[in-house]
Amino acid sequence: MIPRYSRPEMTAIWSPETKFRIWFEIEAHACDAQAALGVIPKESAEAVWTAEGTEFDVARIDEIERVTKHDVIAFLTHLSEIVGEDQARFVHQGMTSSDVLDTTLNVQLVRAADILLADMDGLLDALKKRAMEHKDTVRIGRSHGIHAEPTTMGLTFARFHAEMARGRERLLRAREEVATGAISGAVGTFANIDPSVEEHVCAKLGLVPEPISTQVIPRDRHAMFFATLGVIASSIENVATEIRHMQRTEVLEAEEFFSKGQKGSSAMPHKRNPVLTENLTGLARLVRSAVTPALENVTLWHERDISHSSVERGIGPDATIHLDFALARLTGVIENLVVYPDNMMANLNKFRGLVHSQRVLLALTQAGVTREGAYSLVQRNAMKVWEQGADFKEELLADAEVMDALGTDGVEAVFDLGHHTKHVDTIFRRVFGEV
Amino acid sequence: MIPRYSRPEMTAIWSPETKFRIWFEIEAHACDAQAALGVIPKESAEAVWTAEGTEFDVARIDEIERVTKHDVIAFLTHLSEIVGEDQARFVHQGMTSSDVLDTTLNVQLVRAADILLADMDGLLDALKKRAMEHKDTVRIGRSHGIHAEPTTMGLTFARFHAEMARGRERLLRAREEVATGAISGAVGTFANIDPSVEEHVCAKLGLVPEPISTQVIPRDRHAMFFATLGVIASSIENVATEIRHMQRTEVLEAEEFFSKGQKGSSAMPHKRNPVLTENLTGLARLVRSAVTPALENVTLWHERDISHSSVERGIGPDATIHLDFALARLTGVIENLVVYPDNMMANLNKFRGLVHSQRVLLALTQAGVTREGAYSLVQRNAMKVWEQGADFKEELLADAEVMDALGTDGVEAVFDLGHHTKHVDTIFRRVFGEV
Amino acid sequence: MIPRYSRPEMTAIWSPETKFRIWFEIEAHACDAQAALGVIPKESAEAVWTAEGTEFDVARIDEIERVTKHDVIAFLTHLSEIVGEDQARFVHQGMTSSDVLDTTLNVQLVRAADILLADMDGLLDALKKRAMEHKDTVRIGRSHGIHAEPTTMGLTFARFHAEMARGRERLLRAREEVATGAISGAVGTFANIDPSVEEHVCAKLGLVPEPISTQVIPRDRHAMFFATLGVIASSIENVATEIRHMQRTEVLEAEEFFSKGQKGSSAMPHKRNPVLTENLTGLARLVRSAVTPALENVTLWHERDISHSSVERGIGPDATIHLDFALARLTGVIENLVVYPDNMMANLNKFRGLVHSQRVLLALTQAGVTREGAYSLVQRNAMKVWEQGADFKEELLADAEVMDALGTDGVEAVFDLGHHTKHVDTIFRRVFGEV
Amino acid sequence: MIPRYSRPEMTAIWSPETKFRIWFEIEAHACDAQAALGVIPKESAEAVWTAEGTEFDVARIDEIERVTKHDVIAFLTHLSEIVGEDQARFVHQGMTSSDVLDTTLNVQLVRAADILLADMDGLLDALKKRAMEHKDTVRIGRSHGIHAEPTTMGLTFARFHAEMARGRERLLRAREEVATGAISGAVGTFANIDPSVEEHVCAKLGLVPEPISTQVIPRDRHAMFFATLGVIASSIENVATEIRHMQRTEVLEAEEFFSKGQKGSSAMPHKRNPVLTENLTGLARLVRSAVTPALENVTLWHERDISHSSVERGIGPDATIHLDFALARLTGVIENLVVYPDNMMANLNKFRGLVHSQRVLLALTQAGVTREGAYSLVQRNAMKVWEQGADFKEELLADAEVMDALGTDGVEAVFDLGHHTKHVDTIFRRVFGEV
Repeated sequence: MIPRYSRPEMTAIWSPETKFRIWFEIEAHACDAQAALGVIPKESAEAVWTAEGTEFDVARIDEIERVTKHDVIAFLTHLSEIVGEDQARFVHQGMTSSDVLDTTLNVQLVRAADILLADMDGLLDALKKRAMEHKDTVRIGRSHGIHAEPTTMGLTFARFHAEMARGRERLLRAREEVATGAISGAVGTFANIDPSVEEHVCAKLGLVPEPISTQVIPRDRHAMFFATLGVIASSIENVATEIRHMQRTEVLEAEEFFSKGQKGSSAMPHKRNPVLTENLTGLARLVRSAVTPALENVTLWHERDISHSSVERGIGPDATIHLDFALARLTGVIENLVVYPDNMMANLNKFRGLVHSQRVLLALTQAGVTREGAYSLVQRNAMKVWEQGADFKEELLADAEVMDALGTDGVEAVFDLGHHTKHVDTIFRRVFGEV
Repeated sequence: MIPRYSRPEMTAIWSPETKFRIWFEIEAHACDAQAALGVIPKESAEAVWTAEGTEFDVARIDEIERVTKHDVIAFLTHLSEIVGEDQARFVHQGMTSSDVLDTTLNVQLVRAADILLADMDGLLDALKKRAMEHKDTVRIGRSHGIHAEPTTMGLTFARFHAEMARGRERLLRAREEVATGAISGAVGTFANIDPSVEEHVCAKLGLVPEPISTQVIPRDRHAMFFATLGVIASSIENVATEIRHMQRTEVLEAEEFFSKGQKGSSAMPHKRNPVLTENLTGLARLVRSAVTPALENVTLWHERDISHSSVERGIGPDATIHLDFALARLTGVIENLVVYPDNMMANLNKFRGLVHSQRVLLALTQAGVTREGAYSLVQRNAMKVWEQGADFKEELLADAEVMDALGTDGVEAVFDLGHHTKHVDTIFRRVFGEV
Repeated sequence: MIPRYSRPEMTAIWSPETKFRIWFEIEAHACDAQAALGVIPKESAEAVWTAEGTEFDVARIDEIERVTKHDVIAFLTHLSEIVGEDQARFVHQGMTSSDVLDTTLNVQLVRAADILLADMDGLLDALKKRAMEHKDTVRIGRSHGIHAEPTTMGLTFARFHAEMARGRERLLRAREEVATGAISGAVGTFANIDPSVEEHVCAKLGLVPEPISTQVIPRDRHAMFFATLGVIASSIENVATEIRHMQRTEVLEAEEFFSKGQKGSSAMPHKRNPVLTENLTGLARLVRSAVTPALENVTLWHERDISHSSVERGIGPDATIHLDFALARLTGVIENLVVYPDNMMANLNKFRGLVHSQRVLLALTQAGVTREGAYSLVQRNAMKVWEQGADFKEELLADAEVMDALGTDGVEAVFDLGHHTKHVDTIFRRVFGEV
Repeated sequence: MIPRYSRPEMTAIWSPETKFRIWFEIEAHACDAQAALGVIPKESAEAVWTAEGTEFDVARIDEIERVTKHDVIAFLTHLSEIVGEDQARFVHQGMTSSDVLDTTLNVQLVRAADILLADMDGLLDALKKRAMEHKDTVRIGRSHGIHAEPTTMGLTFARFHAEMARGRERLLRAREEVATGAISGAVGTFANIDPSVEEHVCAKLGLVPEPISTQVIPRDRHAMFFATLGVIASSIENVATEIRHMQRTEVLEAEEFFSKGQKGSSAMPHKRNPVLTENLTGLARLVRSAVTPALENVTLWHERDISHSSVERGIGPDATIHLDFALARLTGVIENLVVYPDNMMANLNKFRGLVHSQRVLLALTQAGVTREGAYSLVQRNAMKVWEQGADFKEELLADAEVMDALGTDGVEAVFDLGHHTKHVDTIFRRVFGEV
């Protein structure tokens, strides 16, 4: 995890304190269920909860672990220091360490998903706001980086909104994938613990019982989770790349917000770099890098091997923390993006109307000119624009054959930008349910 | 695509014939919608359908493409050779090539998903059948490749069933992700074609209209699709690895089916290699290799660049064809897997009862022996088993202190395998809804 | 392998005909060595070579394989049909199938590497030629897509040359990695074949003996090979991306060659899409997708499992064929790239001299103005340029304080582009050893 | 970076203290070179070195960065606090931040490579020692996890040695790839700084000047570096997987060292888990996960964008730290691996001699029996072994036809393990240059 690309709320999920807190809750709830079954004394189960208010001493647990070489045992030892050996000896009965560790991981992933969902809501809000604001701000649409036909900046924001809304849906499902817990013992047979304990603990933690586990919760769930983060990260890169393109010197249709006081801005006013979106491009690669190891983690030997564990110690915090940071950063970029409608119009007109040549072709054909004829008419006027810097509309208005076919109104109609924006409302209704 | 890892039905989806057939349907349905709008003559729309029965001449289309250097134009030219230039000139009006290409790709992916779903159904059937058959076939559960506690072969099949059932759910969603079509023109604004055409074509092809497209359908959808295939492939590797382990000489709890006549079997009867599951392991890597390029495909410049196209020409057929083959192969492996319950029991007893040492420990503690005392009792008997090849139960029955604490019945109870299988029905009910 | 991204020479390496031809050579050379050792009759070894001129009948071999279910046996059966059972029975003696298969794969990879090396030579030639041609063609250097300081188009070509030259060095080493052969028997112990056979066969095929093999040649070699192809593919994407940027409508400093007759060019003269370099971007992703499975192939169980094989049937041909195609395509793009020096100069002057603001700052400081003073002087003139469209040099020449510090010559000097190109020769000498 | 998988020496390379120290050296050496050129006063250059003994105050630099939002400026400000504003103002003259940052990154990577090379030397020593020790320890070779022919444990160690020695060679080259520095200014033209400064700084830091840079050092170098780490990590997984297999309960030919006092060992003496090698399997995945983002980093826009930077903040420390840890851990595992020759022999004899059936076949054929006859003889004896638990050699000795062909000596010869080990010395000489 790279501190400068982290935010406290998400980072806290992965702290030792949070981990031990969840461990405690699992053990305490399990004791309740065991007491209800009559397996352990009710007083012991109650006694465990006396530790509820306690801040666990991470340094002390580490100290014990250095001796026992086992993290869960170290924690249980520390817990018994708090609630007393006498009551604590019933804690963890019939359970295996993985029951605690795997259920905890999933609690952490669910919490992480909740933050990410909130992040995406913020991003969706920002995208919608900017889409509405620029619904009718005309800019040139580009295929292959080359001018094609007009579109609007609102449509650009709207499609990012639609993409991120899909991402949110996927994340919801990914959250569901990992919202399971398991308290099923050494090889998942419940040999030494009743399934009702699992049910109780899961209900208390907002999880559902894993229908069938081995020593561990199956890792196809986590693979799907991280693959989903990878897709969302790729969508972030998609948005970031659009902005990087818009900000490049020759295009300059938008800029990341650059505070007045930011050094260097006035002596080199052109030198405003899209560093946030470039950074997001890199962060997307980092988040995506979790996907392959997560896929490789699915295969475990028999009822479990521990190869997945070191991987998850890395990608668990890293992918969620960096994605959280990236979503928040992107939200800020969108909210504050400085849009330049005048530059958009200037770019659109860069080739003095040539962008409409396709429509002229169509209009001529519809007016009865043959395909070849229409093509030749367009071509001779287009070349004047291209080679001599003429204005396309003026040339067409001055071309007798074209005028015969289309007339002034016909020519003017071709250059009417309204033609390209007439279905924007339809599309907005599809995306936002409103206009 | 590797021919030896392909099956005809899936391969057919990616043939030029199928592609042109789908192109034709898109164009013909679009003509219907255009005619209904009064944009083109009804007769022309009807005339196009005269080509319906025709097998398109791939060689002829290729020939035209060599001249026009444009595949869609080549097809349209060929189509006009069939239905006549006069009627054909209204075909494709207001559309852009990507409208046809992208909608076609999604039709292909949806059909591929349907085959894969059927494959998974077959695999689920096989897994369920074998799970029921071996519900009570006891084998040793292993963590870290080391004997842990008993489980059953039925549970092994059942957990693979649960994993594949999750895969099927994911695939259904992935299918939904790509079940969209777009007929929205050069930059997605419907400038030259009414949205109702898109609606009509999509309805006819079993797709929903892409809410907002640019020149292309957004690629986050395809990224999610291929990521899902990657997760399913990883689950295949997980199952395959279990079987490879079971078949290794020293374990031999199961074998891939090996036909009597297969050469070499009787002179070297031990040399039956798990080549199918090893092959599946490799195929899983191949399918997974589509995930990263699919993620990289999400970022397109502005309203589209064509960088995604060459990638999809590779991973589209490859990932679906190889996964189809792998699912079918795995189904065969599961159906025909030769299971050796006797060897399972022999393996379970390899250390003459030591596998129950944990339960002895627990039983002693529950009988009132202190933790340290119990440990020491277990240890002294366990070491005799380990070092001198003694039988654990016999040693315990001969140990006065142990007998004091547990009695003969107590010792026998510890070695009762029913202890480990008592919740198998519960788990089966979770997985299959029945036992 | 995608046929449209393939070239015949590379594809031929992966044909069944080539494969059987190499199998034959390995077997025949092995017979010679065995005969020299006296293990098999000299006549038999000689007899095998009678098949040298024969085109092996692939259909026939396939037919036999359908019965034997073993490709090497099928080939040997066919070979015995040609040279006669009597002599053929000594062929393959003491060898294992992998001896043939693995050595063949490496022969194929070495030959593929040789073609790729030749491809890179062609690309290097093209890059050098264009670098020399545009050594002094000034264009604006950009960081973050924003104008920074002037550089030259020759430097752009030169750095791609340097990058590709590094790629060539890496490929040479990658070729060396896989230029090994193994004839060492079932588990690599030479139990049934003398090491001298391996030495003889390898020498004949231009390989060195694998120092220690198991049943197979170790796959870290192949991982390194494919990883190297992935790095080269990434360099291709790097070059392709530069060209895509240069060709975008607003920049237009260069264009992929677009033949006069190519349809659509004159009616929409601006619509020339960088489709080749976009395609190269996608091909780079495809080639890179071989890297992860190749890395996953390194781990084989004990003396071998066959999981690597299906992977290599895919990535072997695919990665080499697509990279060959990509290198050839890129070479054509570079050779024919249409460069627009006028547009470069126009872009450089887009902000009427502002690009030199940093140098003005430096010049003022060197002339004794304080840092703050210099900054303020630059700023007040820069803002006029930025906000009112003034010319930077003219403003500076009209600013008394600036003139006091620098004088006319001083101001002119700042705007001298020669300042930025004075070390181009030095750099060229580093890259090309000449200017 | 995961603290529990890190070691102090490697971690120190990536500390802020080390980074600032290298920044200082670059700046100070650059001042020397500038002074030698007469660009800055000699006294100033000398004054800078007065900071040499100083521990830079990271907190103070961070504090300044929070204001300036620029890390290099923050450092320079802090430096000027130490050496005095008057002399410090010449520091960094003509340089761009990337000159410092990129050169520093490469210094760090070179130092990291040096540690990794030393790690590999340690691993190679351990592998060689164990190879020599077990040169003649016979074990069964396995293909597909199934017994094949005998080999020796020494050969297993020797092939890992050969693989790691290749890894070391690759790492040396990877180190060379990144052992370059650049002090070439904003777009790499040396417009404001003489190339001799770069040469001086590089020489002092043990680097060679990057022949042609832009604002940054080209990232194909780093891609190759991380790809190489990925290959080495895969080799680690290869070794780890072998050990995991050897340790599994049914095989038990070797075990990771397990200290006497380690808890639980005596009550469940069979439960010794190969957790270190499982952990190494996971760490290999983590290290490999750096490869794809490093490949994606190669493409930068024009003279640079900063997308690579966040990626490198992650993978730079992570991949080197985790690989260092993994190499050290593997070295320990190899050094302390407990090998069980008796179990090896027991496994080899698991099928009572059947493993020699191939040799019997060969011996019979060489003795003049027809292929079919030999096969039938082997088969009838093999089946008795397989089905009735007989001993293969005894059966053969009791088979009159076999005895006719081979005689007692002939049968005994077939079962002589020396046959399989006769070339071990040859192979050792190839690998180690000695026996």
